[in-house]
Amino acid sequence: MTIAPPPASTATAARWPRSLARVPDRLETLFDPHSVAVVGASANRQKWGYWLARGALAGRDRRQVYLVNRRGAAVLGSRSWPSLADLPASPELVVVATPPGHVRREVEQGLEAGARCFVVITTGVGDPASVRDELELAELVRSRGARLLGPNCMGVVDHAAALQLCWGTVPAGQVGLVSQSGNLGLEIGRLLGRAGQGLSRLVSLGNQRDIDAAEVLLALVEHEPTRVIAAYVEDFRDGRRLARALACARAAGKPVLLLTVGRSAASGRAAKSHTGALVSPLEVVDAAVAGAGALRLDTAGELVDAAVALLAPDLRGGRRVAVVADGGGQGALAADAMAAAGLSVPPLSDATASRLRHLLPAVAGVTNPVDLAGAGESDIGSYASVVSALLTAPDADAVVLSGYFGDYATSSPQLAAAESAVANSIADASADTGRPVVVHTMATTDTPALRVLRERGIPVFERIEHAAAAIANTARWAALSPAEVPPFAVAPPEGDGSYQRTRELLAGYGLSFPAACFVADADAAAAAAADIGYPVVLKAMGLAHKTEACGVALDLRDEPALRAAFATMAQRTRSASFAVEAMMHRPGSVELIMGVRQDPSFGPVAMVGLGGITAELLADTAVGLAPLTHERARRMLGSLRLAPLLKGWRGAEPIDIDAAAAALAAISVAGAQHPEYSELEVNPVLVHPGGAIALDAHGVLAPPRRITGR
Amino acid sequence: MTIAPPPASTATAARWPRSLARVPDRLETLFDPHSVAVVGASANRQKWGYWLARGALAGRDRRQVYLVNRRGAAVLGSRSWPSLADLPASPELVVVATPPGHVRREVEQGLEAGARCFVVITTGVGDPASVRDELELAELVRSRGARLLGPNCMGVVDHAAALQLCWGTVPAGQVGLVSQSGNLGLEIGRLLGRAGQGLSRLVSLGNQRDIDAAEVLLALVEHEPTRVIAAYVEDFRDGRRLARALACARAAGKPVLLLTVGRSAASGRAAKSHTGALVSPLEVVDAAVAGAGALRLDTAGELVDAAVALLAPDLRGGRRVAVVADGGGQGALAADAMAAAGLSVPPLSDATASRLRHLLPAVAGVTNPVDLAGAGESDIGSYASVVSALLTAPDADAVVLSGYFGDYATSSPQLAAAESAVANSIADASADTGRPVVVHTMATTDTPALRVLRERGIPVFERIEHAAAAIANTARWAALSPAEVPPFAVAPPEGDGSYQRTRELLAGYGLSFPAACFVADADAAAAAAADIGYPVVLKAMGLAHKTEACGVALDLRDEPALRAAFATMAQRTRSASFAVEAMMHRPGSVELIMGVRQDPSFGPVAMVGLGGITAELLADTAVGLAPLTHERARRMLGSLRLAPLLKGWRGAEPIDIDAAAAALAAISVAGAQHPEYSELEVNPVLVHPGGAIALDAHGVLAPPRRITGR
Repeated sequence: MTIAPPPASTATAARWPRSLARVPDRLETLFDPHSVAVVGASANRQKWGYWLARGALAGRDRRQVYLVNRRGAAVLGSRSWPSLADLPASPELVVVATPPGHVRREVEQGLEAGARCFVVITTGVGDPASVRDELELAELVRSRGARLLGPNCMGVVDHAAALQLCWGTVPAGQVGLVSQSGNLGLEIGRLLGRAGQGLSRLVSLGNQRDIDAAEVLLALVEHEPTRVIAAYVEDFRDGRRLARALACARAAGKPVLLLTVGRSAASGRAAKSHTGALVSPLEVVDAAVAGAGALRLDTAGELVDAAVALLAPDLRGGRRVAVVADGGGQGALAADAMAAAGLSVPPLSDATASRLRHLLPAVAGVTNPVDLAGAGESDIGSYASVVSALLTAPDADAVVLSGYFGDYATSSPQLAAAESAVANSIADASADTGRPVVVHTMATTDTPALRVLRERGIPVFERIEHAAAAIANTARWAALSPAEVPPFAVAPPEGDGSYQRTRELLAGYGLSFPAACFVADADAAAAAAADIGYPVVLKAMGLAHKTEACGVALDLRDEPALRAAFATMAQRTRSASFAVEAMMHRPGSVELIMGVRQDPSFGPVAMVGLGGITAELLADTAVGLAPLTHERARRMLGSLRLAPLLKGWRGAEPIDIDAAAAALAAISVAGAQHPEYSELEVNPVLVHPGGAIALDAHGVLAPPRRITGR
Repeated sequence: MTIAPPPASTATAARWPRSLARVPDRLETLFDPHSVAVVGASANRQKWGYWLARGALAGRDRRQVYLVNRRGAAVLGSRSWPSLADLPASPELVVVATPPGHVRREVEQGLEAGARCFVVITTGVGDPASVRDELELAELVRSRGARLLGPNCMGVVDHAAALQLCWGTVPAGQVGLVSQSGNLGLEIGRLLGRAGQGLSRLVSLGNQRDIDAAEVLLALVEHEPTRVIAAYVEDFRDGRRLARALACARAAGKPVLLLTVGRSAASGRAAKSHTGALVSPLEVVDAAVAGAGALRLDTAGELVDAAVALLAPDLRGGRRVAVVADGGGQGALAADAMAAAGLSVPPLSDATASRLRHLLPAVAGVTNPVDLAGAGESDIGSYASVVSALLTAPDADAVVLSGYFGDYATSSPQLAAAESAVANSIADASADTGRPVVVHTMATTDTPALRVLRERGIPVFERIEHAAAAIANTARWAALSPAEVPPFAVAPPEGDGSYQRTRELLAGYGLSFPAACFVADADAAAAAAADIGYPVVLKAMGLAHKTEACGVALDLRDEPALRAAFATMAQRTRSASFAVEAMMHRPGSVELIMGVRQDPSFGPVAMVGLGGITAELLADTAVGLAPLTHERARRMLGSLRLAPLLKGWRGAEPIDIDAAAAALAAISVAGAQHPEYSELEVNPVLVHPGGAIALDAHGVLAPPRRITGR
């Protein structure tokens, strides 16, 4: 029996050592240049050149604006120059919206004129030649120390810097947005606007030939007017670098809300067609995003709701909500929506119930949900008194007002002032107590009371399920563990893909295996078994699927049984090498599957799942970026759907979760240090009340993959 | 061994024999009375009497309207009378919005004046005395052959009959709504209005002292302008009667979309406080609703989206969607949203892809989702040509257009006409092909193109997830099995709660059990075992939890083992009676739990689930109204989350699902015919590739419950 030496400690550098401090100026020439030139400025509202010129001119109090129009015609009442070469001074930022064939020339002229940053709207045709042209363009720009956004982007907006270089208009607000899809960015802007919010910055990334998502994320972290960050990313490139940018946002207390694709085969096809990106499995993205302290969301609407909620003061934690409605039906459905979103709607304490009873008529329901039962209709002030009472009581972390409030002015305009006054009282009570109120209103038009609520930072939602999801997302964000993007170092390759070597490698990282000997003939097997002690297991080496190929014989109780098994197995498998191992019986044990894979974007990723057909049917696995700490390995085990089976379900003795976590962490470190293994898997790890032992080991050797990111 | 006689065939009548034909006039006096009197008419816009008078007067071209105002003052320019007694002619419908103390007098006066129907808005205080008063009021009205809606309701609207007796205004449309919550009804109306739809009828049920949900549902089924029915029900009362009304709607091809409470403990508390209703477990409601061919939804918003989709021509089936967007991000997120909702986004055939390639620039993505990649922006007609191509191709059942379309006119008003023309082309293509188009637009304001789409029956959604859920709900509705609300007859009570009798009863319904003898001493046990054949099982009788109380000994292989087990068991359990049964070994078997419970609203309800701790942890059960047909029992088994385990998962031999279904059906019939058992459970039923056998039987006797419904 051979034992592997401990893993090499003289590790080589990690594969993604890219410094986050690469950009000294955090893209100031992009967001707030001293001067802007618009190439292709046009008076035609259906052209990009119109919107870029119009937006640039809106910032002319802050910076010099040069319009470039081939014919030198006046645009929107401003003079223009026929080319960048003709400008009277150097433009710091140049935005280009000319036909594809002219882009290179404009950029060269811009560089000649001293430009420091380019925004290229123009779309290539996506063929290999245009990709090459774009890469060369970026190289040219970078070689002169300048920067490039795009090509194929929809521009950039920074409201605080009066910079608006995009199509149409986007509402101003506190959400910084970086998007790999321009139209999606505009959609998010529209939805934020409808919710009374807007964007602080908008960056449409386009083809990311220079400036990329991670870099813009860091710029948004440092941007004071940006309080919540939204991102749409299809192509994660160097995923660890992006995750580190997310972790920086977390450290700064700025929530990042991320949309991506890959929930379906169809979106994978689309992303491949759209950006040529290799889509990492969604569970890997989720592990990286959650590990870095950010939230992944499913749709633009869900993202906007979460952003609005996260912008509310004090709404960043706590799952207990008190629900208030005027009418039992809306209150009950609101409570159901909250519960369905994973929030709790606890019964009110006797003290709180009795306080509400004094405020409300006898027919009212003073449980949670509180039913005003017409009191809101007969005295609109009831809303404020009930909400105040709940905010000052300890029963819940947030108050949700659902239904009619906000809509009284619609059918009774004479109630508008009273309704607004109540809205102010509610906002006062929230501010005084430092506890949040969330409003769902059935109003389908904006009313004065709703404007008061929004202006005072009370989030207002159009549907109760949106309110519930948004509150749940703030709680999810608050509950994320401290951001962790584990660094890793690569050890010299040791694996050869054999069972024996893989087992030794893992043992070297601390994983326990049963005693084993590797033998070539029956006599040696019998000697080994006598040494190890019966019962034993016999395994044939060099088979891809040992069990299916009759390459495993379990529970051999004596020498005749071993020799008989050996003879059969040798004949059937034609194998030249065999392992004799101690047979493990552990009452109360659970079988786990643990492994590591190399993801093209995120590097080594650890996985754990329960064994057995039911767990397999449920695809019940947890994933995390390797290497894992013991604590993260424990959290992964605890996140399994079937985790209760590990903790002593129905009177069983709990298994040794610490031993399971230690095994998982050990495998994750081995996988991270040995990328010569594209896959490393142990199936099963037998975990019992007294420890964990690996009963097999499987490794797939593969040439190290090229990282897709720059 | 005793075998029960076959079940009595001379069954007594079902417990809910209420005829659905009870109401000859389908509430014509409620919806389209020849004359209406408004008691409490007022000129004060903040009073109910204002809105009722205003609404009634809006229908005066169709019917006589009498306003009753105590002071006889003119209201809204119309004369009034001081009391119902003063009216010049008989009012067919009287709506009452007076203080509680006056309601009885007004109803008496109305009956004297010849009224045939009353709508009572006034709210009682909810105490026992007011409940008694309301019941007496309803009794009085019914005794005169008249009808009563309410009290505590928010009125009634029938747009086709120009009847509008409620607060505010509700938009007109094709959705008939019956609601146990007034404000929720108004919220649904608001949301429908925003979606360009509205209500055909609105009935606020209030306390349902006479007219109830089931009766209104039937009236809506027969109401021609109503094409989709929406219902909010908290209190199911006679649940089978309500389910039969749902089944009538299904038979008429009218979808019923139902909201109810009970997804959380909180809403159960609220419903109890609101209507005093005993809330049936939600899975029972779901079984009844789905069995009757209707859909239960979670929120008002989800209901409205489903209603809008179900009103679209041709959108009632098919889960394959083709997604079109201008921009890869929106297309990919749309595809993901569709997949998450259970729809399929299949790859396009080569023929279709090639057709699209001819219509679009090279950079476009002609997979599914289709990415116009800017073609929509450069030629808005691309939307129509691509949608038409997809509608005429066989690749998908519906086309989903997501993103910018509908929003071009917002930033480019000069595109409004072109965009509307494209909308018309899309609607033409849908009409010509008889295949549906669904639009998600990022527009946050109404634009001419969106109005064209809505007017032409193309559903438009504000969020892609709403579109996905709505399409999935139409597919869910279309996929429901034929409506079944099984009738059942009650047999004379036979059960005594003992294991032996319960086993015999179930055997009489066709369930297979192992051979068994019931014995009192060890010698008799040994004789029985010799007769049955070893191995055997020994069970002590009369214990609540046999296993936990050491009352079961399995796999006794010979007489000494049996006698030893008998001695131990007799001493530990002090039981006087024992069963000796054949021990069953069935390789490849799966253990199922099957049972029947008596639900207070829905009567006998059958349940099936997998045995084992994982299934228990997942609470993986299926529920259906008993008695079940063989086919319904099969469907219930197939609906289990772990159903693949029954069908030969991972190469195992499939179990005999027909035998399992037969056993479940047999237990369901037994439970339905024997309500003396409040619970009847067999745990486990051992199902193997060759049949199904019940290894235990457990019954709980309880006094027959009173049905809460009338």
